[in-house]
Amino acid sequence: MLDICLAGTGGMKPLPDRFLTGLWLEHDGYGLLIDCGEGMQVALAKHGCKTAKMDTLLITHIHADHIAGLPGLLLTAGNGGRCGVLNIYGPKGTEKAVRSLMCITPELAFDVKITELTHHEITSFKWHDITVSALPMRHKVPCLGYRFTENRPPVFDPQRAMELGIPKMYWKLLHSGETVEHEGKTYSSKDISKEDRAPLILTYMTDTVYFDRLSEYAADSDLLICEGMYGSDEYIPKMKDKMHLVYSQAAYIAKKSASKRLWLTHYSPANENPKKYDKTVKEYFPDITISRDGERLTLK
Amino acid sequence: MLDICLAGTGGMKPLPDRFLTGLWLEHDGYGLLIDCGEGMQVALAKHGCKTAKMDTLLITHIHADHIAGLPGLLLTAGNGGRCGVLNIYGPKGTEKAVRSLMCITPELAFDVKITELTHHEITSFKWHDITVSALPMRHKVPCLGYRFTENRPPVFDPQRAMELGIPKMYWKLLHSGETVEHEGKTYSSKDISKEDRAPLILTYMTDTVYFDRLSEYAADSDLLICEGMYGSDEYIPKMKDKMHLVYSQAAYIAKKSASKRLWLTHYSPANENPKKYDKTVKEYFPDITISRDGERLTLK
Repeated sequence: MLDICLAGTGGMKPLPDRFLTGLWLEHDGYGLLIDCGEGMQVALAKHGCKTAKMDTLLITHIHADHIAGLPGLLLTAGNGGRCGVLNIYGPKGTEKAVRSLMCITPELAFDVKITELTHHEITSFKWHDITVSALPMRHKVPCLGYRFTENRPPVFDPQRAMELGIPKMYWKLLHSGETVEHEGKTYSSKDISKEDRAPLILTYMTDTVYFDRLSEYAADSDLLICEGMYGSDEYIPKMKDKMHLVYSQAAYIAKKSASKRLWLTHYSPANENPKKYDKTVKEYFPDITISRDGERLTLK
Repeated sequence: MLDICLAGTGGMKPLPDRFLTGLWLEHDGYGLLIDCGEGMQVALAKHGCKTAKMDTLLITHIHADHIAGLPGLLLTAGNGGRCGVLNIYGPKGTEKAVRSLMCITPELAFDVKITELTHHEITSFKWHDITVSALPMRHKVPCLGYRFTENRPPVFDPQRAMELGIPKMYWKLLHSGETVEHEGKTYSSKDISKEDRAPLILTYMTDTVYFDRLSEYAADSDLLICEGMYGSDEYIPKMKDKMHLVYSQAAYIAKKSASKRLWLTHYSPANENPKKYDKTVKEYFPDITISRDGERLTLK
């Protein structure tokens, strides 16, 4: 289960009525943030995201609208009594940028551990029991998307458990993946399961120009969160130059990847009414949300 | 004449309904900003402060709530087409902090010129025809207040000008300080003036613990803008340790310095309703404003 809050939906610069794009995730009591542009600590506070739970920060790339809020977030966490390590992952250049920005947080009471990931191929690491894959985007600087895969236990079959004569006290343990010995026999979760369940998948992709592999990256997502700077296709040539996407390109990726839902984000400041193209984009992909700041979902 | 806008009134961290303290000044078509905490570019945009006019930024001290918004402000200015030099003044450490923060603004199209000022004595420099004095505060790190003095031409006496037979076409020129030759005689502004006018004075002081010289610094201010973290005097011992002021201390400074008006700012995030002590502080100093974000005044 993943609690998801898109704390902001803006790109390039924060606006009085639109925070910069950043994604807040909660799983099993832990919090994870993707990107930390200027004002992110305010967006998180406004939307009730409990940063005391945060143990991990993922940076997509070293552009100010994705990282300039870091010193403020760190200091506020420190002033709030944080003492646990904060793990920061990002592309090449993250260490230098984070350490430079931390010149104004000299007395931080907790450690920051930085891991740089390659942007030449997909790499994976664990956030508790969730697998996080870093996806190479194509932007003006090294940039990563992120894919979260939560494997779920297979469907429990109580009928089968009763037939095998396994006492109820062992059912939960078995279903959680443990093995159990009972009357000289060893049972595993397979013995009491009907069928495998598909993992939960969340994919987050910004900032990038369009390329075919984006659909592979997003394959079978329960939720795809993808940038869309403008609603009109007339911006496609400009976005090729600026290395961003328009709504219809994000919708095409969602469709081709067989994603279940799509949230758009990272609107240009010049895109004053992001929802204007609501009807048009629904023709490309029905379950699309032109997200607002604070968009929420529990994926389960 | 000085157009003044207090873009934010918060201290320590930005809140959903309170930007961090920063002062915007406009004079003669030029803009000057004091301090640039996280979100300052949004506060300025919200309150209609035209940052395209800004040629000078004064930093009080190198704490994140006074400088973390700098990269965002610079980038937005650059993206907006700025090409003129931005002059930054601040205490010791400003050069290092600004250059470190600028690690995420590598492609800025304009230059930043940094001048470090001593915090051991008062130093002065010119912002166009206004004299800016940097005032040594007492805080945990080197910190400066700023005092702005605009000398004004003496009061014009048209009766005297007529008596001297000076044609009207010369009056404006003479009053602006130029000398004029007419029928073999040389006239200066003194010849057509009644009396000298007191300069316009604005004093800005944050962050500091109380000490007696603060009243000298603020002497005869038309407007004193001074920090006040809390409204209740019970916080005085804590503020001595944290090196800040409470409302009544700011009011005392205003009174002792014979300032005409006082604006309070830089409230603690724990000070949820800054105006709660409105009546109490008016007993100490009548022309006091417990400022809100966007407080405005034209000083003339």
